[in-house]
Amino acid sequence: MEILQKVVRGMSLIVQKYGGSSVKDSQRLYHVARRIAEQFRLGNQMVVVLSAQGKTTDSLIEKAQEITDKASGREMDVLLSTGEQLSVSLMAMALGQLGCKAVSLCGWQVGIHTNGIHQNARILQVDTERIRKHLEQGMIVLVAGFQGISEEGDITTLGRGGSDTTAVALAAALKADRCQIFTDVEGVYTADPRLVPEAVKWQEISYNDMLVMASMGAKVLHDRSVELAKDRQVCLEVLSSLSNVPGTLVRYQRETQPMLRGITADNSTLCYRLENITLEDAGRLMMTLYRRDVRPDLTEQPAPLQLFFTVPEHDRQTVNETLSELSLSAEVDESRSKVTLIGSGLHSIPNLKQELNTALQNENIPLGSTWLGERRYSVLVPREQSTKAIEALHRVLLRHQS
Amino acid sequence: MEILQKVVRGMSLIVQKYGGSSVKDSQRLYHVARRIAEQFRLGNQMVVVLSAQGKTTDSLIEKAQEITDKASGREMDVLLSTGEQLSVSLMAMALGQLGCKAVSLCGWQVGIHTNGIHQNARILQVDTERIRKHLEQGMIVLVAGFQGISEEGDITTLGRGGSDTTAVALAAALKADRCQIFTDVEGVYTADPRLVPEAVKWQEISYNDMLVMASMGAKVLHDRSVELAKDRQVCLEVLSSLSNVPGTLVRYQRETQPMLRGITADNSTLCYRLENITLEDAGRLMMTLYRRDVRPDLTEQPAPLQLFFTVPEHDRQTVNETLSELSLSAEVDESRSKVTLIGSGLHSIPNLKQELNTALQNENIPLGSTWLGERRYSVLVPREQSTKAIEALHRVLLRHQS
Repeated sequence: MEILQKVVRGMSLIVQKYGGSSVKDSQRLYHVARRIAEQFRLGNQMVVVLSAQGKTTDSLIEKAQEITDKASGREMDVLLSTGEQLSVSLMAMALGQLGCKAVSLCGWQVGIHTNGIHQNARILQVDTERIRKHLEQGMIVLVAGFQGISEEGDITTLGRGGSDTTAVALAAALKADRCQIFTDVEGVYTADPRLVPEAVKWQEISYNDMLVMASMGAKVLHDRSVELAKDRQVCLEVLSSLSNVPGTLVRYQRETQPMLRGITADNSTLCYRLENITLEDAGRLMMTLYRRDVRPDLTEQPAPLQLFFTVPEHDRQTVNETLSELSLSAEVDESRSKVTLIGSGLHSIPNLKQELNTALQNENIPLGSTWLGERRYSVLVPREQSTKAIEALHRVLLRHQS
Repeated sequence: MEILQKVVRGMSLIVQKYGGSSVKDSQRLYHVARRIAEQFRLGNQMVVVLSAQGKTTDSLIEKAQEITDKASGREMDVLLSTGEQLSVSLMAMALGQLGCKAVSLCGWQVGIHTNGIHQNARILQVDTERIRKHLEQGMIVLVAGFQGISEEGDITTLGRGGSDTTAVALAAALKADRCQIFTDVEGVYTADPRLVPEAVKWQEISYNDMLVMASMGAKVLHDRSVELAKDRQVCLEVLSSLSNVPGTLVRYQRETQPMLRGITADNSTLCYRLENITLEDAGRLMMTLYRRDVRPDLTEQPAPLQLFFTVPEHDRQTVNETLSELSLSAEVDESRSKVTLIGSGLHSIPNLKQELNTALQNENIPLGSTWLGERRYSVLVPREQSTKAIEALHRVLLRHQS
């Protein structure tokens, strides 16, 4: 009976996520509210995840820094989680004003259960009972992103990209028909279209390609949410909250032939170089960083007994603390960008590395370390030449399409 | 064994409440943090209730008003409760910085169970398990004031004076040794010392006198928290967060002889006058207002078939809506202040009403309605003469002391 109704009335359960810039002020918030209302009035059940408005999280962090530079993770989570709570309550009011019944829920109200690692918690389980109850009452359900509750009953936050992860976890738990991630670009492109006008939007892309793109600096999705989507087989749609064109689907794809997918740049990468390091120390360092959720990118090594790796800027403090705990010293270089070409089957494209290196050299871009794997080619270039390098690699990518 | 320890080490369980102005910026917040730390280091168990910082609640209300002028109470509560959440997390950070272990808790984390009346919820029950656990772990427990959780798992707020009520309810549930309400005045005075320099601070005052003072415009405590304190026999201490002098104790006192306690003024009172009203309409109006938590002050009636009452400014909307629902029309006068002398056994003080009226007339203050009960004498005076009226009545009060 229920299934029949769904077919007859075309009712789908849709999970949507809107980021901070999409709800940054009342005007944007109403724009999003109207989009939600439209889908709702078509007979869909709507579960919407929101981030904190615009710069709210930053200003909350500033408030904490006025008090102390060593706030506990637990209390930072209590503080930061108010940002998303604010967004969902205001959105419920806007939807009410538009004549739609809506209810806002915090992480603890939904039952988004996480482990107890503050500021970087992982979702363990999502309850669906309360959301389903409100959906059955004919309400739009607004869920505060980025937050959950630990076994001890403490508020936790999920770290970077947390609201995307909330949306994916909800879509998986609710077996949603669609999971739409709204951002300020219209999908996943071969390169950032604001930098490279020739960039092409993908209609769909595999989890694996998206994962590498996300971890190599593409800001459209956070890698953790893509990992979860892959793991739970949730098909993601990445699309713009400002236009009405179809976005990009992220889902399972069989990889049949080599393919170049996109170019990304990480302009805040840090390059660490350790001289005369033993294998034991190198191993211990890597293990400790991994345990602390840092994923160093180990490049082709410049020389024996030298360890060279890059990490994102936001891991600086963890890396430095770890080095000092292990009594290791390193040289840090912040002057480089890591530019990456993502694809699959790269080793089976003849002379690819040569072609890419030549494309950069033709633009007089001095090459730092380069490395080629099955899924990506990365190169360190002077930071001020990052865009030129993206453009050069993108021309190679376009040559290989068709 | 536990009792022995308490006696030997002088350990008390102290509940403190600090209002919004006491924590309005980081400097004030640290000032309060040092006071809490001091008591904690003396070996006391500390449970501290905080309000939202300074004007936070006002700016949250503004945010809602940007969205809609008819936000639901449920969503207003989700929004407003973030203010206190922010205060307790920042205070936990400040105490951490001072070397004290502290933990912040929201209403739902403590288990402050309320009914489901949003924006004006009543506390039904307070769980103590989690607070006791943290106290036994040697932590200072910071509780977000003004908020609770309904049976449905929704966030509720307690309405005006809510944080005072939170403190009293916690003190009662925890059987605290002391319940200290910190404000920006040093206790309960015979009149507002900022208006009347001759005002005298009471060392202690009865629940009944405090109740009348609070409901007649004294801002030092909200009447609902005094009601709860009386009901649960919690002795309150009202004192200043800015000085170290003893405040005023509010507790049970046997009333043996007539006593004049203090003069208050409500400068935002609204006077409603209804002409040619039937007894039935008058009765229905009063019942409806009562049910909506409005307590009209019915004065001596000016004429038969005329109904005259005053309500505080913040009840304006409710009263107007109620009048219009009952198809009643009224004349509203906002030009008057209600000045009140509070005491006990007033009827047994000979010629009191005459003496008070004369005191006002000698200052050329035109008297509006006056009324004398066993616990108070009230008079309506032109708003711009309210301070002069307070001074005149205060001189009578001083004459009757000794």
